[in-house]
Amino acid sequence: MSRVNSQSFQDAFYRLRSNKAFELFVIAIIVFSALVIGVKTYPLPAGLVSAITVMDWMITVIFLFEIVVRFLGEPNKLRFFHSAWNVFDTLIVVVSLVPIENSEMALVGRLVRIFRVLRMVSIIPELRMLLNSLLKALPQLGYVMLMMFIIFYIYAAVGSTFFAPINEDLWGDIALSLLTLFRVMTFEDWTDVMYETMEVYPLSWFFYLSFIFFTAFAFLNMIIGIVVNVLEEEHQRVATEEAAAAGEPTLKELRNEIRELKELLLDKAQR
Amino acid sequence: MSRVNSQSFQDAFYRLRSNKAFELFVIAIIVFSALVIGVKTYPLPAGLVSAITVMDWMITVIFLFEIVVRFLGEPNKLRFFHSAWNVFDTLIVVVSLVPIENSEMALVGRLVRIFRVLRMVSIIPELRMLLNSLLKALPQLGYVMLMMFIIFYIYAAVGSTFFAPINEDLWGDIALSLLTLFRVMTFEDWTDVMYETMEVYPLSWFFYLSFIFFTAFAFLNMIIGIVVNVLEEEHQRVATEEAAAAGEPTLKELRNEIRELKELLLDKAQR
Amino acid sequence: MSRVNSQSFQDAFYRLRSNKAFELFVIAIIVFSALVIGVKTYPLPAGLVSAITVMDWMITVIFLFEIVVRFLGEPNKLRFFHSAWNVFDTLIVVVSLVPIENSEMALVGRLVRIFRVLRMVSIIPELRMLLNSLLKALPQLGYVMLMMFIIFYIYAAVGSTFFAPINEDLWGDIALSLLTLFRVMTFEDWTDVMYETMEVYPLSWFFYLSFIFFTAFAFLNMIIGIVVNVLEEEHQRVATEEAAAAGEPTLKELRNEIRELKELLLDKAQR
Amino acid sequence: MSRVNSQSFQDAFYRLRSNKAFELFVIAIIVFSALVIGVKTYPLPAGLVSAITVMDWMITVIFLFEIVVRFLGEPNKLRFFHSAWNVFDTLIVVVSLVPIENSEMALVGRLVRIFRVLRMVSIIPELRMLLNSLLKALPQLGYVMLMMFIIFYIYAAVGSTFFAPINEDLWGDIALSLLTLFRVMTFEDWTDVMYETMEVYPLSWFFYLSFIFFTAFAFLNMIIGIVVNVLEEEHQRVATEEAAAAGEPTLKELRNEIRELKELLLDKAQR
Repeated sequence: MSRVNSQSFQDAFYRLRSNKAFELFVIAIIVFSALVIGVKTYPLPAGLVSAITVMDWMITVIFLFEIVVRFLGEPNKLRFFHSAWNVFDTLIVVVSLVPIENSEMALVGRLVRIFRVLRMVSIIPELRMLLNSLLKALPQLGYVMLMMFIIFYIYAAVGSTFFAPINEDLWGDIALSLLTLFRVMTFEDWTDVMYETMEVYPLSWFFYLSFIFFTAFAFLNMIIGIVVNVLEEEHQRVATEEAAAAGEPTLKELRNEIRELKELLLDKAQR
Repeated sequence: MSRVNSQSFQDAFYRLRSNKAFELFVIAIIVFSALVIGVKTYPLPAGLVSAITVMDWMITVIFLFEIVVRFLGEPNKLRFFHSAWNVFDTLIVVVSLVPIENSEMALVGRLVRIFRVLRMVSIIPELRMLLNSLLKALPQLGYVMLMMFIIFYIYAAVGSTFFAPINEDLWGDIALSLLTLFRVMTFEDWTDVMYETMEVYPLSWFFYLSFIFFTAFAFLNMIIGIVVNVLEEEHQRVATEEAAAAGEPTLKELRNEIRELKELLLDKAQR
Repeated sequence: MSRVNSQSFQDAFYRLRSNKAFELFVIAIIVFSALVIGVKTYPLPAGLVSAITVMDWMITVIFLFEIVVRFLGEPNKLRFFHSAWNVFDTLIVVVSLVPIENSEMALVGRLVRIFRVLRMVSIIPELRMLLNSLLKALPQLGYVMLMMFIIFYIYAAVGSTFFAPINEDLWGDIALSLLTLFRVMTFEDWTDVMYETMEVYPLSWFFYLSFIFFTAFAFLNMIIGIVVNVLEEEHQRVATEEAAAAGEPTLKELRNEIRELKELLLDKAQR
Repeated sequence: MSRVNSQSFQDAFYRLRSNKAFELFVIAIIVFSALVIGVKTYPLPAGLVSAITVMDWMITVIFLFEIVVRFLGEPNKLRFFHSAWNVFDTLIVVVSLVPIENSEMALVGRLVRIFRVLRMVSIIPELRMLLNSLLKALPQLGYVMLMMFIIFYIYAAVGSTFFAPINEDLWGDIALSLLTLFRVMTFEDWTDVMYETMEVYPLSWFFYLSFIFFTAFAFLNMIIGIVVNVLEEEHQRVATEEAAAAGEPTLKELRNEIRELKELLLDKAQR
């Protein structure tokens, strides 16, 4: 009988979790927690600060309640933590609950409160899908990214070999050189960097122009690659959908029908 | 008989409103009012200033006349204000007519005169269509925009948590941080912002680079989404048009014709 | 007999003009004239300067000779000046021949010599085609350009209304404001412009952000419009080419063939 | 018998070279050599410096061994140097082996060690294919690049004619002008360049704006050209693949089948 009870409990939680109003309430709480974070960046009167601290704890409690509901509503408890988003949500709530003592932990506590805004993504399915599609697009970029990193690395090594004595801050070691090259790629005051080295090596414009050319070209290639991929997938999806929806026969089916006709005719001719 | 009269009045106004020459005259007046606005930004001799004031009133009167014509020419008076452009035109004209007294209102008057240039869009159908298609593209961007705002908000909250003591003007509160991050996204002197915080937090380059990466990626995704959507719509429009224009049968129709043939043959065979 | 002579003359010139070696020679001379222009921008010893002057005249003479050959080789003399490129070439050569006296004319002379490099486009058919296709793409951009200009004009008028007292150099009149807005559109130190006006109008960030949003959106729309147009044309060209090349029947032809079959069967059935 | 021996030797080397573990080992060594290059840009204790020198020689020896294996494993020794990558690899290894004496050579030695990172591309087939596809896309850009260079050259010549007295560093000769124009094209502090010349020639904004317009337009055209090309190739590849995979008959084949049917019917009707 206890088992029946737990079953009906779980059903109740499952219904609560799938309830549209409950979802909207959680979204409202997340938006509210985001606003609280924003308000906290302004200088506030002491009264408001303590009010915010109370609200903060209320938000944490509501989030804890929501996670518990989601967990208890899950028919298969083991599968709950298979979803990365559930793990993320639980982690955020658990860390929020840890009492903060020293100042280092206080910073972590503030960060965790900020990352609660990310729960928006875990709650709204459309955002989750969007993020998934963004992440799914990453691996196909793998080799172009590797190629780009090789270009960056070679230029950074050459840059810090030649230009380190000219400007330690920009070309002092390979990490600084990589950062400087990223800056050049975004065209951010890149001529200042160039004019400085051109005073010592007058031909160093070739270093910068070839780098810009290579990265722009690789970048362009990357974008075109993505566009083509997306269009292709879209095209195939549309093609299959259309074919399925309209009940259009394929050319092959048409040929088979014509062949059957021919056989019919030949049969009659032989008779 | 009065009703017949009002009917013929309305027809006359409708004809006037649909008249190409009248439309061109109104466009010319709008261009002229735009020129007047431009001229007013230069220092002018007193004579020209009063001449411009007179011209300004003439433009307002002509616009008033045009709106009245359009309104009287409309068969269904209630539907007139269903069009947002008609409401916009009427509002612009009405506010232009309000006599300006104090200096605050004078500013509003000047702004209204500037926004009269927007009447160009309400008059030229091609521009109206263009704007509509731009606005229609916005909602499909909804979730990507929301995702981008979440990224911005989290980075702004983190930024003002850590960097507020370094530079109050850039990271003082969440609104300033959002503006600074927008600046970073446009690559506008973003290294100055970064080098400043790297002096205190040497690893803060990761904050900027990851932000640039995320926003660039989300932006790219947005553009690709629009391109795919536009191409798809175009593709479908072309497909339907072609099919309709050429009278091309579908593969399904072909199959049916073949099947009819088969039935004919079978009929004969059975007889 | 004189007529026969002139005919054979014309044929000779026509052959010379169509000669591949002659074309390559002219291209070589154009490249050489471009190099001469480049060399003249460096400080040169007196000897080289006079050598260049001599070469300059030789280039002019060769160009004159080439134009004459092209003109005499043209069967229909009247049609010669229908081509804008022929008019351009003739103009460049004629102005080069005018003896330069005062310093103002000397500048025109130098400019004309520079524009001789453009003859490369008039000589190489592929470049001429490329330019034509670029120019052909312009009109379809017409309305987007107009829309963009309206946006620019309204923002410039608002900008010089409010910000003129803050910075005369940037917002003094509508022309300066348009230039400043173009600068903002290219993200070139746009935050400097913004921070300056935000000191007086703290909410003026909205002016800049909305402007960037509108122009970026209109620009994006323009690009997508071109891409869609180009792809469409390409698609149609390919489709027609394929159909023509492969001798593929249309679905309509197939249906007609099937219908003929049906008629044959019905004919037999009736007999 | 010696020949049989050498044959089995070659087979052994061929097997070693095609061995996945051997390939991974070589990739690991290349990554390690890249790390060594990166580490060398930091100030190091003397002990680590000598350790690195030893490692450097070990890497060179391993690379030499790998090249020898690849050469001996190649059935056709002459074809080995037909591959540009094999020539590149051999050159890098041979130059690494040359004992460095004076400081000039030391720099070459360091550069060669940096370019060893490029061996990553020669080892990983996907990167080699990517680079090939990038290089293959270059020639189709030929005429747009030429057109762009003509635009640059004409503007640079005009720029150094007019602006050289204003700023020798930016417009002194045609090479400096070309560099300045490239800077303008990347929008890098282009208004500083413009404001400077506008003080002397107030209308020089037209020079910059028209240049930006032309280059942006040519650039856009270039990108669209590539996108269209890539999509086209992709489209054709997909079409051929689909047709081949599904065994779909063409419309022509269908028509022929229908015609055969008709002939059958006519045959019977004649009998």
